[in-house]
Amino acid sequence: MGTHLTGRSVRVLIGPEPKNLITRDMPEVKVSFEGFVGDRHAGLTRKADVRTPRFPRGALVRNTRQVSIVSTEELALIAEALGVPQVLAAWLGANLELAGVPRLTQLPPGTRLVFPEDATLVVEGENEPCRKVGRTVESHHPEQPGLANRFVKAAHERRGLVSWVERPGVIRPGDRVKVELPPAVAYSMPAVADPAVSKP
Amino acid sequence: MGTHLTGRSVRVLIGPEPKNLITRDMPEVKVSFEGFVGDRHAGLTRKADVRTPRFPRGALVRNTRQVSIVSTEELALIAEALGVPQVLAAWLGANLELAGVPRLTQLPPGTRLVFPEDATLVVEGENEPCRKVGRTVESHHPEQPGLANRFVKAAHERRGLVSWVERPGVIRPGDRVKVELPPAVAYSMPAVADPAVSKP
Repeated sequence: MGTHLTGRSVRVLIGPEPKNLITRDMPEVKVSFEGFVGDRHAGLTRKADVRTPRFPRGALVRNTRQVSIVSTEELALIAEALGVPQVLAAWLGANLELAGVPRLTQLPPGTRLVFPEDATLVVEGENEPCRKVGRTVESHHPEQPGLANRFVKAAHERRGLVSWVERPGVIRPGDRVKVELPPAVAYSMPAVADPAVSKP
Repeated sequence: MGTHLTGRSVRVLIGPEPKNLITRDMPEVKVSFEGFVGDRHAGLTRKADVRTPRFPRGALVRNTRQVSIVSTEELALIAEALGVPQVLAAWLGANLELAGVPRLTQLPPGTRLVFPEDATLVVEGENEPCRKVGRTVESHHPEQPGLANRFVKAAHERRGLVSWVERPGVIRPGDRVKVELPPAVAYSMPAVADPAVSKP
């Protein structure tokens, strides 16, 4: 089952409006197989878009981007890089802010986040920074033009993760979370001369 | 999107009977969000069991073990280790046999298998060998007592993978399959002295 470390949830957030990126703090969230109940990203399936370029635009695929997660420490690093006092999880449209998990954005796919009231999330991968979020950050600091463009670089490898629900439950601010890394794997691409590769 | 390599499907199999481990060859399979249509492992959710010891027995969790996959080359290695002429994918209850993917069982979680008629499977992880399958192998070679027990060792890191459906479609024998590895990640456990770990 691999090694694990421990963090804690700082806040849980919901974005109820389909067209509004910003999320808001909740005292708790119910977690179903669809995601955070009431959040605009909840659903068992989703239509492929720019975030899932491996599929044709509009193809119906499993929703592996149900819950977005950011890190308190990484938000502080983004703020520092931008020269602003703070960057809030809500501005990034995050559903969950965790503290105490080093280099959260680098957690590999398949990492499990296990919460005390049953909920378990599985990491799909990094949530890549976009200018849309950057514009939200900029709107809070209009005195700093160009923040939207600078956000993408400042948030590189710090913008957090997307994940999906493996087990339903409840998540609250202050919950301890166990972070279970998948077993270490040492798969590397075979050399081109490998006959299994050159004659598939 | 990471690097990728290419293999091909050798056979597709269904296990329609709830209590019979053995699967049988099909000319094609329909793939839904639940798994291989008609297979006993299909379903959006499953009850946690000995295969998912991180959850309490019986807890309802996402079914990440919809489709089991083995490799032609690894089956040959198992047969060689056991000293039998062949080990069939059907004996292992596999749903899919692939050839041309080196060290299939070592593919990391999050690896995607992309088929020409839309179906996409995501690797959950290694399917650990058990004696139950060993007994099936032994039943085909009663002249070799002890095969059931020896199977577990012979199949170590060769018994294939379990996976879930990201995109529905159809899979047929002879299909080319693209194997997309997840982006390389270099996450390692922080030293114990890391304050973020010691004061979660």
